Amino acid sequence: MRPAVLGFDADDTLWDSESHFDRTESLFVELLTPFAEPDEIRAQLLAYEQQRIAIYGFGIKGFTLSMIEVAVDLSNDEISAADIREIVRWGQSMLEHPVELVPGAESTVASLAADHRLLLITKGDLHHQRRKVSESGLAAHFEGIEVVAEKDPATYREVLERHSVRPSEFMMVGNSLRSDIAPVIAIGGRAIHVPYHLTWGHEQFDHDEANAITASPDHFSLSSIVEVPELLDRLESEPQQ
Amino acid sequence: MRPAVLGFDADDTLWDSESHFDRTESLFVELLTPFAEPDEIRAQLLAYEQQRIAIYGFGIKGFTLSMIEVAVDLSNDEISAADIREIVRWGQSMLEHPVELVPGAESTVASLAADHRLLLITKGDLHHQRRKVSESGLAAHFEGIEVVAEKDPATYREVLERHSVRPSEFMMVGNSLRSDIAPVIAIGGRAIHVPYHLTWGHEQFDHDEANAITASPDHFSLSSIVEVPELLDRLESEPQQ
Repeated sequence: MRPAVLGFDADDTLWDSESHFDRTESLFVELLTPFAEPDEIRAQLLAYEQQRIAIYGFGIKGFTLSMIEVAVDLSNDEISAADIREIVRWGQSMLEHPVELVPGAESTVASLAADHRLLLITKGDLHHQRRKVSESGLAAHFEGIEVVAEKDPATYREVLERHSVRPSEFMMVGNSLRSDIAPVIAIGGRAIHVPYHLTWGHEQFDHDEANAITASPDHFSLSSIVEVPELLDRLESEPQQ
Repeated sequence: MRPAVLGFDADDTLWDSESHFDRTESLFVELLTPFAEPDEIRAQLLAYEQQRIAIYGFGIKGFTLSMIEVAVDLSNDEISAADIREIVRWGQSMLEHPVELVPGAESTVASLAADHRLLLITKGDLHHQRRKVSESGLAAHFEGIEVVAEKDPATYREVLERHSVRPSEFMMVGNSLRSDIAPVIAIGGRAIHVPYHLTWGHEQFDHDEANAITASPDHFSLSSIVEVPELLDRLESEPQQ
């Protein structure tokens, strides 16, 4: 059965995001090379980021503050003020970076909007996400733009209720098993996983968690967003379960 | 005429916020005393905050990053890593600070919820605002919790449309002429200004702007949130205009 309503994740589904974090992290590792080994720097940064999610939430400002804390701590208070300024600037550059749509995002969303209700459901920093949505040129295709603080089953349930959508008629498209796929299947919806070439450590599922999700009949996997319309056509021609 | 729907601002209307910024700013001024005069430090911080709103949006993380930048710049790169750590910690303490309701907020909101639809409309950091709403214990009184990136006429129009509310039946309660009062009157609603004892520089209206707003028949002013029910009773007994 074809879903009446499609949800789209944004970062790393409609436009690039993790690659900017990845690039900045490489600069950060280089900056701290005098003080620690690359592996230690990366591990410490991920640890600080995860510990700080409870107070910072998701997004570039928290990432920047975590880099600053790691720099101070791993350098034993030796990091220079000039280096701190550099880190602050990296964060600003990331926030100002133009939106780069993934290949085919625009035409796929436009064509799907013709016969589906579309929701954009994105996690993170309200101000930055709003700016990117507006810059992407895709906003008009969506019935609702939902920037949420966390992507858990309760949040999806709330968003769907707000738009009067039953989970059984909803299908989510996104790159994160943890945020876009598992919670949607948990509330009775379906989901299409379109992996991005990079995944932030915090979003990673271990082998068993991933297997449990991918075994679900409500889970689909595609290698590109441009294949979504074809999958939906196929579902339509299948007998209703 | 009594409004059917009431909007409430949150920071400095239902709970304290600016006092935490103010306290941290005093610590910051003290920290930078070796490098600059207090007035220069305060002016530079406000200037950086305002210049960075376009990329950071509103909230404590952006404030913290601005303090760090000012510290590096005003100290001519002399500020120590230990002092930078201190600034990062201040930001974390602010984010973790327990919600302190303004006197009478709880009983006033509870009593108004009995015969009005209530919306909470707050600007700023999604994650932090959600945490405060949840911790405040007030969430259940509100039909909708709207965390918005900017409080301008377009945003209020959008929020009211989403809840199927006509501006003429809506009244906003808040502490900021710029964010809570002027834009609501601009779209045809009414608004009650309940000033807080502190106002962030960015929110301040100049004399002429303030006069234009306070001259409007749709503007009301009270010294405490507990006076709102009485004002609404008075409006009800007045003939419809």
